[in-house]
Amino acid sequence: MIEQKHIHALEAIVGKENVYSDKAHLLAYSYDATRTRYMPEAVVFPRHEQDISDILIYCNTHLIVITPRGAGSGFTGGALPANGGIVLAMEKHMNKILEIDTQNMVAVVQPAVINKDLQRHVEALGLFYPPDPASEEYSTLGGNVSENAGGMRAAKYGITKDYVMALRAVRANGDIIRAGKRTIKDVAGYNIAGTLIASEGTLAVLSELTLKLIPKPRFKKTYMGIFPSVEEAMNAVFKSLSAGANPVAMEFLDKLVIKALIEKLGVDLPSDAGGVLVGDVDGNVTEEIEFQLQTLEKSFKENGAVEFKVAKDEKEASQLWYARRNASQSITIYGNKKLNEDISVPRSKLPIALNKIYEIGEKYNFTIPCFGHAGDGNIHVNVMLDATKEGELERGHHAIEEIFQLVVDMGGTLSGEHGIGLSKAPFMHIAFNEQELNLFRDLKKAFDPNNILNPAKMSL
Amino acid sequence: MIEQKHIHALEAIVGKENVYSDKAHLLAYSYDATRTRYMPEAVVFPRHEQDISDILIYCNTHLIVITPRGAGSGFTGGALPANGGIVLAMEKHMNKILEIDTQNMVAVVQPAVINKDLQRHVEALGLFYPPDPASEEYSTLGGNVSENAGGMRAAKYGITKDYVMALRAVRANGDIIRAGKRTIKDVAGYNIAGTLIASEGTLAVLSELTLKLIPKPRFKKTYMGIFPSVEEAMNAVFKSLSAGANPVAMEFLDKLVIKALIEKLGVDLPSDAGGVLVGDVDGNVTEEIEFQLQTLEKSFKENGAVEFKVAKDEKEASQLWYARRNASQSITIYGNKKLNEDISVPRSKLPIALNKIYEIGEKYNFTIPCFGHAGDGNIHVNVMLDATKEGELERGHHAIEEIFQLVVDMGGTLSGEHGIGLSKAPFMHIAFNEQELNLFRDLKKAFDPNNILNPAKMSL
Repeated sequence: MIEQKHIHALEAIVGKENVYSDKAHLLAYSYDATRTRYMPEAVVFPRHEQDISDILIYCNTHLIVITPRGAGSGFTGGALPANGGIVLAMEKHMNKILEIDTQNMVAVVQPAVINKDLQRHVEALGLFYPPDPASEEYSTLGGNVSENAGGMRAAKYGITKDYVMALRAVRANGDIIRAGKRTIKDVAGYNIAGTLIASEGTLAVLSELTLKLIPKPRFKKTYMGIFPSVEEAMNAVFKSLSAGANPVAMEFLDKLVIKALIEKLGVDLPSDAGGVLVGDVDGNVTEEIEFQLQTLEKSFKENGAVEFKVAKDEKEASQLWYARRNASQSITIYGNKKLNEDISVPRSKLPIALNKIYEIGEKYNFTIPCFGHAGDGNIHVNVMLDATKEGELERGHHAIEEIFQLVVDMGGTLSGEHGIGLSKAPFMHIAFNEQELNLFRDLKKAFDPNNILNPAKMSL
Repeated sequence: MIEQKHIHALEAIVGKENVYSDKAHLLAYSYDATRTRYMPEAVVFPRHEQDISDILIYCNTHLIVITPRGAGSGFTGGALPANGGIVLAMEKHMNKILEIDTQNMVAVVQPAVINKDLQRHVEALGLFYPPDPASEEYSTLGGNVSENAGGMRAAKYGITKDYVMALRAVRANGDIIRAGKRTIKDVAGYNIAGTLIASEGTLAVLSELTLKLIPKPRFKKTYMGIFPSVEEAMNAVFKSLSAGANPVAMEFLDKLVIKALIEKLGVDLPSDAGGVLVGDVDGNVTEEIEFQLQTLEKSFKENGAVEFKVAKDEKEASQLWYARRNASQSITIYGNKKLNEDISVPRSKLPIALNKIYEIGEKYNFTIPCFGHAGDGNIHVNVMLDATKEGELERGHHAIEEIFQLVVDMGGTLSGEHGIGLSKAPFMHIAFNEQELNLFRDLKKAFDPNNILNPAKMSL
């Protein structure tokens, strides 16, 4: 329990204006995108890295738990103060782009910089920051690193971890750690930056990020393939990629999503389509774009595509993307509540994974529309249900558990990009055995022996 | 000390034929590429992962130290049994390519597979494994992961860590750990695979590697730029890259190396050249190759290049590469002993870094020819000396220490690709403060509380 003396001590560190314990503020920092609430006992806004260090030293001594928070846009509760204590909110002060080093193609940012703000900033300089989680307009880069956020462009460009060159972070005991360098190669010491990526704020508090940028590709085009069945579409995914296609994105919509898009939004797609693949290709020369499109068209048609479209201009491109962009909102026709999980499987397993997911839907009598990042094997599975019905939510969770087991049995993962946090913590035992969980616990203990950093997350 | 009863216990695990404690075997496993010797007390060849686990359980109980070993080709003593004990030699049994999954573009290998063997194997299937350390013909992939090996192609394709999708490893207590997945996205649990990369066998013993493959680019060409000074060449490096060039490799030779190549090997380079850049560009269409070459030529000429050559065919390509390939052996004209360090700086710092390195050379009266991977900021610095002279080696080490301090002050690293091991352990304090070293120690302790895995390495 945080007492008044603790509040005063925190005020002495960051100033009275950066500590709140009134109900309105506590409420405002009690939720995230999971729409679950846990009340913190105080909200503290560090002004800089030294504040974070001082706060952690104090909290580590007094065993006060801390939940670091970026935008609170996570889908698994990573920013929820599940055990009370302090929310350490980065958004107020630690939100600056500190440097864009165009010579070395590196950005140095504070953790609360919004992903898309960095993208826009560097694109104006002819550079490119590829990771593009769906939350890019509001999620923070610190949160992106903590959850190892993905996005649509992962098929070609990889995910957040592929762009983290160096981090500064503060350990639970207040030690300020520099990890990694502004160099492509650095093998001195343990890979602490790699260890902190995806650690969900449980090992250290990130205070500064050094991110890799690349030259912005000069040309881009949008394609769409329409398939009679989702199975054919999913075959086309791994076959086109192993044939040498390297699209920026390869997103898919299944039959249920297509139906919802037509019914709810009047989207112009054939009503008998069983699967759609849509994405971009990019390159420095138009011939590379042509090569990519030809490779895709050939593989798509060999795998049953009835149509392969290429957008002539920006307007047509955004028409093709419209369906994918509105997939999530269209499927509300199937239920007033969705359980949305972001499982991931090796791409060649997509066809069978989807069929088995639909079988689980039939068994439980749930509609399960699926869409997402087929190009990297990451599917957004949506178990649609009527939350007003008695016991429906519980049955939904059972269906999800079966899906997780299926995915893990196929060599896949509980989460492709959302993380574990609170929401998936009960399912960790499906993916990891006791020895692996023990290693996680040992690692946590090495960084944070008193368990003050974001406790209750990841089932540790 | 290993007693006879320990030898018997090890024989009971792996069989008599896989345990050696005779002098010839001990000698054969006492050295590596550093040419330093430390005698082990036994050499054990595990047949499979379960053997590794059984051996570690036994050794952890009896506090017998273990040094895992691939090919022993490392430059920093990572495979040297500095504290005696057992060398766990992977080469005999754990050397198989287990699977090439062409559908998901993934290779699954045992740790002692030779890097180049994997490259050849997958290239025959139209796939590509980019990491190409200079030791590729004999170094093992397990060693590559343990040291996070780099190579020439890092400028475009990154280093070993960028290709590790999943690992299996055995902890000091014998626990078998699966880390990572055969999926592009996986954010469930801590990034244990990332933690093990570059950990130099001090945290766990690698038992299986799942590596990412990419489609083999269809076209490749070799270029060379000749500059009046190394400073102009180094300016051309970061300026061409930030102008959008994305060469597979951008290697450099300084004036001293050029002179040595001409004198010792009669290489056809202008005797007044101050710096050379040589490398490849690749792509799926010839127009991409042209775009790359034009971008390079323009930047090179803007930065003073007097000549820009493009190889017309394979033969010309290997002529251009001949100089770089023979850089290391040519510089022996400057001394009978070289202290070779692989420092790395942000690319824009290359011009000033080189000038300061030469100043250190002047101060100590050493010739310091430099060459290496300019495209990723990684320089091979060679302090040449006469080892027969009294005190010369010690003075050489002082010069190296000054170079390390300089590099770290510029935001660079002690090692771009060779690791720390024993050779660079004395310099860790230059790169890391006490808090950072404490974190390394805590991490080591979490994985290996009894310090049985490759002790004495990395200054822990």
